[in-house]
Amino acid sequence: MSTDPAPRSVGESGEEAVLAVIVEELGELHRAGTDLAALTVPAGDDAAVLELPEDGAPARILLSTDTLSQDQDFRPGWWTPQQQGAPMGRAVGLKAAAQNLSDLNAMAATPIALLVSLTLPATTSLDWVRGFYRGLAEAVRREGAEHCHIAGGDLGSGPGISVTLTAVGRLPAGHAPLRRNGARPGDQLAVSGPLGAAAAGLALLEVGHPCPGPELSRLRDAQIAPAPRLRTGAQALRCGATAGLDLSDGLLRDAGRLARASAVRVRLDQAALTEQAAALLPAAAALGLPEAQAQAEALRWVAAGGEDYELLASFGAEARLPEGFIKVGEILECAEHAGSDADGAREVLLTGAIDDQGWDSLQG
Amino acid sequence: MSTDPAPRSVGESGEEAVLAVIVEELGELHRAGTDLAALTVPAGDDAAVLELPEDGAPARILLSTDTLSQDQDFRPGWWTPQQQGAPMGRAVGLKAAAQNLSDLNAMAATPIALLVSLTLPATTSLDWVRGFYRGLAEAVRREGAEHCHIAGGDLGSGPGISVTLTAVGRLPAGHAPLRRNGARPGDQLAVSGPLGAAAAGLALLEVGHPCPGPELSRLRDAQIAPAPRLRTGAQALRCGATAGLDLSDGLLRDAGRLARASAVRVRLDQAALTEQAAALLPAAAALGLPEAQAQAEALRWVAAGGEDYELLASFGAEARLPEGFIKVGEILECAEHAGSDADGAREVLLTGAIDDQGWDSLQG
Repeated sequence: MSTDPAPRSVGESGEEAVLAVIVEELGELHRAGTDLAALTVPAGDDAAVLELPEDGAPARILLSTDTLSQDQDFRPGWWTPQQQGAPMGRAVGLKAAAQNLSDLNAMAATPIALLVSLTLPATTSLDWVRGFYRGLAEAVRREGAEHCHIAGGDLGSGPGISVTLTAVGRLPAGHAPLRRNGARPGDQLAVSGPLGAAAAGLALLEVGHPCPGPELSRLRDAQIAPAPRLRTGAQALRCGATAGLDLSDGLLRDAGRLARASAVRVRLDQAALTEQAAALLPAAAALGLPEAQAQAEALRWVAAGGEDYELLASFGAEARLPEGFIKVGEILECAEHAGSDADGAREVLLTGAIDDQGWDSLQG
Repeated sequence: MSTDPAPRSVGESGEEAVLAVIVEELGELHRAGTDLAALTVPAGDDAAVLELPEDGAPARILLSTDTLSQDQDFRPGWWTPQQQGAPMGRAVGLKAAAQNLSDLNAMAATPIALLVSLTLPATTSLDWVRGFYRGLAEAVRREGAEHCHIAGGDLGSGPGISVTLTAVGRLPAGHAPLRRNGARPGDQLAVSGPLGAAAAGLALLEVGHPCPGPELSRLRDAQIAPAPRLRTGAQALRCGATAGLDLSDGLLRDAGRLARASAVRVRLDQAALTEQAAALLPAAAALGLPEAQAQAEALRWVAAGGEDYELLASFGAEARLPEGFIKVGEILECAEHAGSDADGAREVLLTGAIDDQGWDSLQG
């Protein structure tokens, strides 16, 4: 126990410092594998891997859990008074499922179960609950989630809506999970689809924009009811991916995580990101931003916006990228090996003036 | 989607009505077992059972999830200003673990993993987080949790502390889980230990009682840092238990659940409950209750108080109860078969005037 006169708060410390405390305490527990279970991939990747020894080949399950909180991950004000029941419930269900299923996808696993813990204010309508479960059911009817059961959960009351989903997945026999620690200097860095739509949608929602037309409503829906593709992890693994992780906190931040886990650096290709940003300019225009600012804002959505639920993965220099994947950079040696260059200390290199390092779940 | 002019809220409807909506929606999903996973015990018991087909015998895992919310399940005011860091964190970790591990115990499973999702206000101290993980580690070092890994989780921010744990368990090969639907008329009904301590502790905490001495501090600790025995489920199964469930919402309410699931009625033995209530009289006295009221209140703690994390189980009429178990009643035929008696419509019969039906997580 600390004897600091003024103990530091998690907000001052930031997410990485809190995670460091957690990793330290879990290290203290020193739990070896037993004849019932071994933790072969501990906390730190998108999901933990648990091996269940059996007479035959051990079954391996992947576990991931995520909480969505009202006012942090969604705001009731995003929906009209008429939409506060089933439509809002459905969207929250879709987003909660997307977040969890996307974590399993990032490790190339197949989802087999979702568990649900719902904390609801007493004033929540029954219709909201119905809509929420319909959203979950809709999510597990999508391609890649055919094996996924909804295995019940817990119900409690609280001052705001809070939803925690736990996803359980399986790995095909003999397959290793896709992890974040395998990137090598010279590898290509790619994303499974265009980035920034969820961040642009958030900006529109925050000013109460009505999002008319398919172009803007697509961006809004990317934020409130995301529909990630759930086979990109397995697809990447088949194409020889060396590392991968879920892009939930923004490219800059998540690329930094891949770099640290793999002990490499990442150089992002500004031209590739600028090309993606072009698709978001209508949103910047709808927000009334002048042209120069609009381009900078759209690039920020691409590079630092979170919640896209796309896969970030590295591939050998000669590898052919999976269909739909877009190259966004390359892997460099870590600073110690690279000699002294101006950027030596930084894990993620990107020319230009993006100072936002992505979403910190405790400081944001 | 409902077209009701005034949609009903979950608070007005109560927990059972909300669960009915959930069960209905999950039924709509109609998901059959696949070659990767089958849900052999769905939502409704203390944990869901998922079968993972393999070449050999299928592994079976049990899944349970529970959320603890600040001001609902614990209040910062229960700790002094000096205890708001690590000591409060430790207690919340112990209680969260108790709640989840107890669910697995109630189905006679062995815990193999806990996943953690923490939602924290930015002002939470890092010491709180450290204390919380130490509480979890303490809980999985207890007898019965030797195989349990802490498999990481999620970190987010919110207006109050909210902790969701998901517990994963395994069943011994060839063993069926202990479920709530197997009680038969004539069975004995028993609990794995004395009840009411957590409710008495809550009453003391709510008035800010300092709880001096071992007798009162034991009751306070039963509420803030419970330490359930984790082998009573397996013990009950070995002694031929016909049904069982975790006593988290109070004897009256949970006995009603066992009765409904088994299509029987339960008659509780007031003398047995009164005997247990005697041990709680010092708490009622510490609250300044006059003697007659003290006895009624102590009996209410035993019969309707929640969070004891003891097992409620039924055993054949001739069975010898496992060590430490206490008989609290018997199983009767359901009303249709029993002819018309005055109590015919009630699932749980108890002589006397306890009108509190236990904890409803949405109305309480």
